[in-house]
Amino acid sequence: MRALVLEKQHVRFDANHADPAPRPGEVVIRPTRMGVCATDLELCKGYMDFRGVLGHEFVGIVEQAPGNKQWLGKRVVGSINCVCGKCDMCKAGLREHCRQRTVLGIAGRDGCFADRFTLPAANLYEIPDHVDDDRAVFVEPLAAAFQVLRQLTIEGRPYITVLGDGRLGLLCAQVVSKLNATVRCIGKHPRKLELCEKWGVKHRPLEDVGLRQDQDIVIDATGSPTGLTTAMQMVRPRGTIVLKTTISPSQHLPGAGVDISPLVIHEINLIGSRCGPFPDAIDALSQESIDVVSLISRRLKLADGVEALKLADQGDVLKVLLEP
Amino acid sequence: MRALVLEKQHVRFDANHADPAPRPGEVVIRPTRMGVCATDLELCKGYMDFRGVLGHEFVGIVEQAPGNKQWLGKRVVGSINCVCGKCDMCKAGLREHCRQRTVLGIAGRDGCFADRFTLPAANLYEIPDHVDDDRAVFVEPLAAAFQVLRQLTIEGRPYITVLGDGRLGLLCAQVVSKLNATVRCIGKHPRKLELCEKWGVKHRPLEDVGLRQDQDIVIDATGSPTGLTTAMQMVRPRGTIVLKTTISPSQHLPGAGVDISPLVIHEINLIGSRCGPFPDAIDALSQESIDVVSLISRRLKLADGVEALKLADQGDVLKVLLEP
Repeated sequence: MRALVLEKQHVRFDANHADPAPRPGEVVIRPTRMGVCATDLELCKGYMDFRGVLGHEFVGIVEQAPGNKQWLGKRVVGSINCVCGKCDMCKAGLREHCRQRTVLGIAGRDGCFADRFTLPAANLYEIPDHVDDDRAVFVEPLAAAFQVLRQLTIEGRPYITVLGDGRLGLLCAQVVSKLNATVRCIGKHPRKLELCEKWGVKHRPLEDVGLRQDQDIVIDATGSPTGLTTAMQMVRPRGTIVLKTTISPSQHLPGAGVDISPLVIHEINLIGSRCGPFPDAIDALSQESIDVVSLISRRLKLADGVEALKLADQGDVLKVLLEP
Repeated sequence: MRALVLEKQHVRFDANHADPAPRPGEVVIRPTRMGVCATDLELCKGYMDFRGVLGHEFVGIVEQAPGNKQWLGKRVVGSINCVCGKCDMCKAGLREHCRQRTVLGIAGRDGCFADRFTLPAANLYEIPDHVDDDRAVFVEPLAAAFQVLRQLTIEGRPYITVLGDGRLGLLCAQVVSKLNATVRCIGKHPRKLELCEKWGVKHRPLEDVGLRQDQDIVIDATGSPTGLTTAMQMVRPRGTIVLKTTISPSQHLPGAGVDISPLVIHEINLIGSRCGPFPDAIDALSQESIDVVSLISRRLKLADGVEALKLADQGDVLKVLLEP
C-alpha cells in the first residue's frame, strides 16, 4: 500500500509499504480524509523521536474487523491513544495516560497517512451521516479544544485570551466563546484572525495588545517556544494558563530557556492540556455549533503528502487535508 | 545605623547607613532576630535586580509609630508585601499581588538586616509572649509553607512528595505531614533529612528514589533549576506540582532551558506559590505543632552578615540567624 513515512527527521512517500496486520481487538481502517496537524510538523523536527507512518487525524471506513463485525463498513473516527487497560492509570479512569500506550502516528504505532492502518475497535466512534468527511476529519483536534473546557472552572464571566491564530487556536477560540466569558483571540496573521469576525469572536493582532497581566485565563495555542512567556505577561496574578503548545527540544534555542519564575511570583496556575473528549466534538459538529470548514486551506492527494507537510508549515496556511 | 547592603551583586556591611524615615502609616522596627533565606542568596546573584538593605525575615520591637501609637513597644513580625490598597489586585482581595507593591528587602524597599527599618503598620502581627524570638523569626518562611495548603485540594489520601531538604522544604514537609496524605521528603543531604525522623515524616535520598511518575502531588522546594524537571519525573499524569523555587535568570545555563513539554503530555497542573498566611504560621508556632528550632544551624551578629550569607549558601547549613 501507499504511506507517508518518517525516518530520522526525513519524510518520504512510500508506494510499496507493507500492509498493516490487525492484532486481536483491532480493526483495519481505510481513511477517506486525513488532516495535517502541527504535531506532525514537530515530529518531523524530532519531537518524540518518532519513526513510522505519520498522521493521526482521520475519518474513514472500517474495512476489516475480525471479532468486531458490528464495526464492518462503518464510517468512523478514532481516539489516538491505544491503551493496555491494566495499568494504574487505566484502572484509575485515566486511559489516555496509560503507561503502556501507543499513540497513532506519534508514538510506537503507525499512523493514518496511508491507504490502511489499524486501531483498537475500542477507540472507534461512529460518525452521523449528516456530518460529512470535511467536518468529521476535525473531530480529533476539536476534541483537543474541548479538553480545555473539561479542565477549567468558569466563574463570574472571566476574561479569556486565546493566544495563537493557528488551527488549534481558532478551534479553542470558537469553543471558549460559548462560555459565559469575555473572549478574545490574539495572533500574528491578519488573514487567519479575520475568521474570528465571522464567528463573532473578538480578535487583535499581537503587536497591538498591551501586556498588562489582566487576563483571568490565557490559553497558549501558539505552538511557539515564546508562547508561554507571552502568556505569563498577559495573565493576571493568581490567574490560569492552559498550555496546549508542545515543541520539539530542538526548538529550545541555546540560552533561550523559558524563565518560569513569574509563575511563582504571580502564583499562576498552569494546566497542561492534550487530547480531549471525542463525544463533545462529534456533538458540536453534528449540531453545527462549531465552524471547521472555514479552516480548510488546501486539499492534496496522499501521494503529495510531502508537499502537504511543507504547505502546513507556512504562516498563512490553516488546515491542509489529504485525500486518498 | 548599621546595615547589610547589596549593590550590583556585591554585599557589604555599612556601619554608617542613613536611618530610615517612616512615611505616613509606617512604623520603625528594631529587629531582635533576623533570618537568612534562599531568596537573599538569589538576590545576591542578581535576582530581581535588587539594590539596598537585604533581609525580609525578622521579629522585632516597634520603636516609632507616629499615628499608630497602639503598636509602640509591641513585639511583632510583618508581612513583606507593602501595598497601595487602590489597584485592581488590592480591590480584588489579592493584596499580596498589588501592582504597585514594594517588598521588604526584595523589591523597591530596604530590608530588615539593619538596626532599624520601616514597614506599614497594616503589615504587622503581634507575637504572643510564649513564642520566643528564635521561633517567631520563622513566621515568614513558615507562612510560605502554609500557602501550599491554601492552594491544594486534598482528596482521598494522596501521595505527596516534598522535593528539597532545605529550609523551606523541611517546613513544607512538616506542614503537609499534618494532612490526610502519605508524605515523603526527598533531598540530597543526609544530615538534613535526618530531621524528618524526629518529626515522623518519611524521607529518602534523591538517588534512591525511582522516578516513576506516581506521586499525586510534588512540591518543588529545591531552589534548584533542575527541581522542576525532577518534579515532572515524579508526579503522575494529571497530578499537581506546587512550584516554590524561584531562581535568578543567570542560573539558567545556556542550553539548559527547562523542557516543559511533559506538562502538556501528562496534563500536569503546575501551581506557583509564594508568600503565605501569617496567622496560620503564628498559630502553628503558638501551639508548637511545627518544630522550627531544630532548623537553626548558626547564629551570627549583624556585623558578620556577609559571612552569614556565605554560610547559608553551604549545602549542609539550614537556617542562619542574625542578632543585633
